[in-house]
Amino acid sequence: MSYDRVAFVGLGLIASSMFWAMRRAGMGAHVTGYARSEQTRATAREIGLCDTVCDDLASAVRAADLVVLCLPVGAMGEVMAELAPHIKPGATVTDVGSVKRAVIEAVAPHIAPGVHFVPGHPLAGTEHSGPRAGFAELFDNRWCLLTPNGADTAAVAQLSDYWQALGAKVEEMDPDHHDLVLAVTSHAPHLIAYTMVGVADDLHRVTNSEVINFSATGFRDFTRIAASDPTMWRDVFLTNKDATLEILGRFTEELFALQRAIRTGDGEMLHDYFTRTRAIRRGIIDAGQDTDAPDFGRKKR
Amino acid sequence: MSYDRVAFVGLGLIASSMFWAMRRAGMGAHVTGYARSEQTRATAREIGLCDTVCDDLASAVRAADLVVLCLPVGAMGEVMAELAPHIKPGATVTDVGSVKRAVIEAVAPHIAPGVHFVPGHPLAGTEHSGPRAGFAELFDNRWCLLTPNGADTAAVAQLSDYWQALGAKVEEMDPDHHDLVLAVTSHAPHLIAYTMVGVADDLHRVTNSEVINFSATGFRDFTRIAASDPTMWRDVFLTNKDATLEILGRFTEELFALQRAIRTGDGEMLHDYFTRTRAIRRGIIDAGQDTDAPDFGRKKR
Ligand SMILES: NC(=O)c1ccc[n+]([C@@H]2O[C@H](COP(=O)([O-])OP(=O)(O)OC[C@H]3O[C@@H](n4cnc5c(N)ncnc54)[C@H](OP(=O)(O)O)[C@@H]3O)[C@@H](O)[C@H]2O)c1
Ligand SMILES: NC(=O)c1ccc[n+]([C@@H]2O[C@H](COP(=O)([O-])OP(=O)(O)OC[C@H]3O[C@@H](n4cnc5c(N)ncnc54)[C@H](OP(=O)(O)O)[C@@H]3O)[C@@H](O)[C@H]2O)c1
Repeated sequence: MSYDRVAFVGLGLIASSMFWAMRRAGMGAHVTGYARSEQTRATAREIGLCDTVCDDLASAVRAADLVVLCLPVGAMGEVMAELAPHIKPGATVTDVGSVKRAVIEAVAPHIAPGVHFVPGHPLAGTEHSGPRAGFAELFDNRWCLLTPNGADTAAVAQLSDYWQALGAKVEEMDPDHHDLVLAVTSHAPHLIAYTMVGVADDLHRVTNSEVINFSATGFRDFTRIAASDPTMWRDVFLTNKDATLEILGRFTEELFALQRAIRTGDGEMLHDYFTRTRAIRRGIIDAGQDTDAPDFGRKKR
Repeated sequence: MSYDRVAFVGLGLIASSMFWAMRRAGMGAHVTGYARSEQTRATAREIGLCDTVCDDLASAVRAADLVVLCLPVGAMGEVMAELAPHIKPGATVTDVGSVKRAVIEAVAPHIAPGVHFVPGHPLAGTEHSGPRAGFAELFDNRWCLLTPNGADTAAVAQLSDYWQALGAKVEEMDPDHHDLVLAVTSHAPHLIAYTMVGVADDLHRVTNSEVINFSATGFRDFTRIAASDPTMWRDVFLTNKDATLEILGRFTEELFALQRAIRTGDGEMLHDYFTRTRAIRRGIIDAGQDTDAPDFGRKKR
C-alpha cells in the first residue's frame, strides 16, 4: 500500500531527491512541501518541486499520510512541536536525520497517540545542499536505515516499501547502534576532513594557492567532504557527541601509534597496516557501494 | 627539442601512464623499459608497453637520452647505483618520486659528471598500481613539480617541455618546500585515511560488514585513499618523516580543539570552522583540479 498524500517539511537536497525519485517511480501521491524561507519556497515552485508548496506548516501537513522531516537534526524538535497538532490520526511521521537517538528524544514527545513515528536515515548525500541539489538517483542501491524503536509494524513495513520504491535498500537498526556505526563511517571521517582542511588553511609557510593547485589525490577528497553544509554538520556533532568523541579517541590513539612508527622508522609496521586497510576497500567495491574505476578527479559531469 | 631515446626504470602506474601519454602526443622517441620482476616484464610485453622491454638494467638505459626512475622512493638509490655506470654522457636522469629531498640524497651521489639530474614529481595518481593501471590522460592538466636543485637550465627546459607534451603543467620548486607542501596536500591526508580505516577495521562493536555496507559518503573516500600501494606509502612516510610529523602534530592540536568544541557544545565554533573550510574547496574547483559535479560514489566507468 502506498501513501496517498506525502508532505515534506524542509525542501533541501534530501527532500528534493525524494520528490524526484517518487516521480521517477511513478508514484501517484499528492505531494505538499514547506520550507522556512520565502526564497526556498520560491525556488521549489520555480523548479516544480512538490505539487503544492505551502506558506505555512499546518497546510503542508494537514492531509498527509506521510510527513517527512527533512531538516537539520537540531531543528527537528522545535518544528515538530509546531506541526504536531496538525497531523491527522493514523499518519506516519518519519525523518531523514543523520543522527537517530537525539531525533527520537526531540521528536517522540510531540507524537500524538494514533500517529506513528518511524525514524529513518538514508545513507546517501552529496556535498551540495538546497532544493536545486536534488536528483532522482541519489538513493539508488544505497541503504536507508530505519530505527523503529517499537513503532507499529504495519507502519514500518509501509515506510520500508516506500523507500524501496525510491531505489534504496532498507534495514532496521537500534538507534544507539545506528549512531555508533555512523560515527565510524561518516561523522568522525567528516570531522577529520574538516580538521585537515583547516590545518592546510592555517599553515603560513604553505600558501593557499599552493594548497589549491597541488591538492592532488588525498587532500582533494578531503576538501569535498569538508565542503558539506556547516549547519547540518554542526548539528550532527552536537547531537551525536558521545559516539563521535569515542571514535575520535580511538582514532587519536591509532594515529599516535602510526606517528611513532614513522618516527622510529618501523617500515614493517607501516607496510602491514597499509596492507590490512586495503581489504576493506575491496569489500566496499564488492558490496556495490563504490566502483573500482580509478578516480583521478575528473569524472564525467 | 625532444628526446630520441627514453628509458623507464620501473614499469608501474606512472611509467605506463607516461608511455601512453607519449604515444598519444605522437612522440617518435624509441622507448625502452626495465622492471625488476619477470612477471611485470611479461605483462609489459603483452600490453605493448615500451618498444623494447629489457631483461637487464644496463641494456635498458645504455642509449637513453632520458632515464626516468619510476620506482618506490626507497628503492631509487640502490637502483641508481647499479645503473649509473651505463648512462651515457649528456643524458638526463629524472624520477617521479613523491618525496624529493630523500631522492636527491640517494640518487645525486651516483650521477656522473656530464649527466644531468633533474628530480621531478607529477601530482597525479590513482589508488591502483602496476603496468596495467596506466592510462594516457593521467597527467592532463595536472601539475608536475621539478626540483632542479642547480641542474643545467637547458636540461631542465627540455624535461619541462617533455612533461607539457604529456599533458602536465610544470612548475619549479625547492625540494624541501616541495616536501612540506606535499606533506600537507597528500602525505598527511593519506596517513589519516589509513588510520581511520584501521580504526573501523578494529572496532568490534561495529562489524566489518556494517562498515562496508554503510560506508556512505565520507568513509568511502577514505577507503579509496587507504587502498593505495603499501610499499609506495611506507617509503613516502619514512623518507618525508619530518614534514609529515610536523603536519600531523598540527593536525592533532586542531583536532583536539574541535573535540573540545563538541564536548562543550560550542556550536558557533564548529559552524565557523566548517564555513571557513568550504572556501578552499571553491578554490580547488576554480583552479580546475576537480569538478563541482556531485560525487555520490557511482561515477561512470
Ligand atoms: N546532505 C547529506 O549528505 C545528508 C545525507 C543523509 C541525511 N541527511 C540529513 O537530512 C537532513 C536534511 O539535509 P539536507 O542535506 O536536505 O539539508 P539542506 O539541503 O540544507 O536543506 C535543509 C532544509 O531545512 C530547512 N531548515 C534549516 N534549518 C531550519 C530551521 N531551524 N527551521 C526550519 N527549517 C529549517 C531549510 O530551509 P530554508 O531553505 O528555508 O533555509 C531547508 O529547506 C539533515 O538532518 C541531514 O542530517 C543529509
Ligand atoms: N601512484 C601514485 O599515485 C603516484 C603519484 C605520483 C608519484 N608516484 C611515485 O611514482 C613512483 C612509482 O609509483 P607507481 O605508482 O608507478 O608504482 P607501481 O605501479 O607500484 O610500480 C613500481 C615499479 O617499481 C618496481 N620496483 C618496486 N620496488 C623495487 C625495488 N626494490 N627495486 C627495483 N624495482 C622496484 C616495480 O617492479 P615490479 O613490478 O617488478 O615489482 C614496478 O615496476 C613512486 O616513487 C611513487 O612515489 C606515485
